[in-house]
Amino acid sequence: MARSVKPRSIVLATRNPHKIAEIKAILGGRIQYESIGDFLGISVKEAGRTLVDNSLTKAAFTFKVSGKPSLADDSGLFIEALDGKPGVYSARYGSDDNERITKVLKQLANEKNRRASFKAVFIYYYAPNTYAVFEGECRGMIADEPRGSSGFGYDPIFIPKGYSKTFAELGEKVKNRISHRAKALIRFKKYLTNL
Amino acid sequence: MARSVKPRSIVLATRNPHKIAEIKAILGGRIQYESIGDFLGISVKEAGRTLVDNSLTKAAFTFKVSGKPSLADDSGLFIEALDGKPGVYSARYGSDDNERITKVLKQLANEKNRRASFKAVFIYYYAPNTYAVFEGECRGMIADEPRGSSGFGYDPIFIPKGYSKTFAELGEKVKNRISHRAKALIRFKKYLTNL
Repeated sequence: MARSVKPRSIVLATRNPHKIAEIKAILGGRIQYESIGDFLGISVKEAGRTLVDNSLTKAAFTFKVSGKPSLADDSGLFIEALDGKPGVYSARYGSDDNERITKVLKQLANEKNRRASFKAVFIYYYAPNTYAVFEGECRGMIADEPRGSSGFGYDPIFIPKGYSKTFAELGEKVKNRISHRAKALIRFKKYLTNL
Repeated sequence: MARSVKPRSIVLATRNPHKIAEIKAILGGRIQYESIGDFLGISVKEAGRTLVDNSLTKAAFTFKVSGKPSLADDSGLFIEALDGKPGVYSARYGSDDNERITKVLKQLANEKNRRASFKAVFIYYYAPNTYAVFEGECRGMIADEPRGSSGFGYDPIFIPKGYSKTFAELGEKVKNRISHRAKALIRFKKYLTNL
């Protein structure tokens, strides 16, 4: 039941093409990835209080409807001066990326503490009531204004620690090595390798 | 990093002797179990909103202080007529087992719907930011009055589905085969066997 054998295919609990491309780029290998969109035209609500809650809802649902090993994720931008906001609400902080970024920059106007952290959780649900969790974190700063055009979400205003450019300026290649999501996915990749 | 090799010893995030005995009885085998009490005289607060939240707090803490693979759990009694209460608050529903049981029976006085479910979550935290989760559920009914003396917690008022006796009457041997905690632990045992 809880046997964790090497999967031939994994169902991704997302229909976001950016995320699907990112997961394939980082995990690579011989595993075939399918999107939950191929199974049912349903979006799972992210209404939980933690990243684990949200990714668990999606992973459990995807496992249930597909009957196959499933991978779900949730991530958020936790800004120190805003007491961790937008955090688990990052994707719902406005109606689109522009609105969300504008809101954050407004709230941080005249704020000197720009420290922030991107956090990600990936859940691999592979047997009934049984799943593995992988977390990743990338610390950094919030820029004074949006810069760059690569990536998605808050990428244009997040400057990872040790860099002077935003994720959107650094581009996918660098981001897929150092991001919170990359770190979690690399942990998952090692897990798969060791199965 | 996320390599899940077979552990020689596992640190249990509990000092509850009932739980330690139960875990050893169900998991058995050659693994050595240590209690977090052997490392630090600290209790971790269960202040989360879900069983996963609570067990994760304990598992992550225990892994951090011990530096060894750690196992933490949380469980709760979810009563249908009480909208899932006491649920995640089961251990804090009163100052001792007697008080908690009395409170539940009082709230269910004249209530015909006695359906309830015991749920358990075990988290095995084995590498930084990496852990495996095992859930278990045991459906049943709330008895009209406490019966039996075996076990702990709500055992004297929980009658598992398919039985006419309470967990406290059925005794450890039966309980360790059919309980929510047993089901989760058996999933964990299979996971360990397959490492």
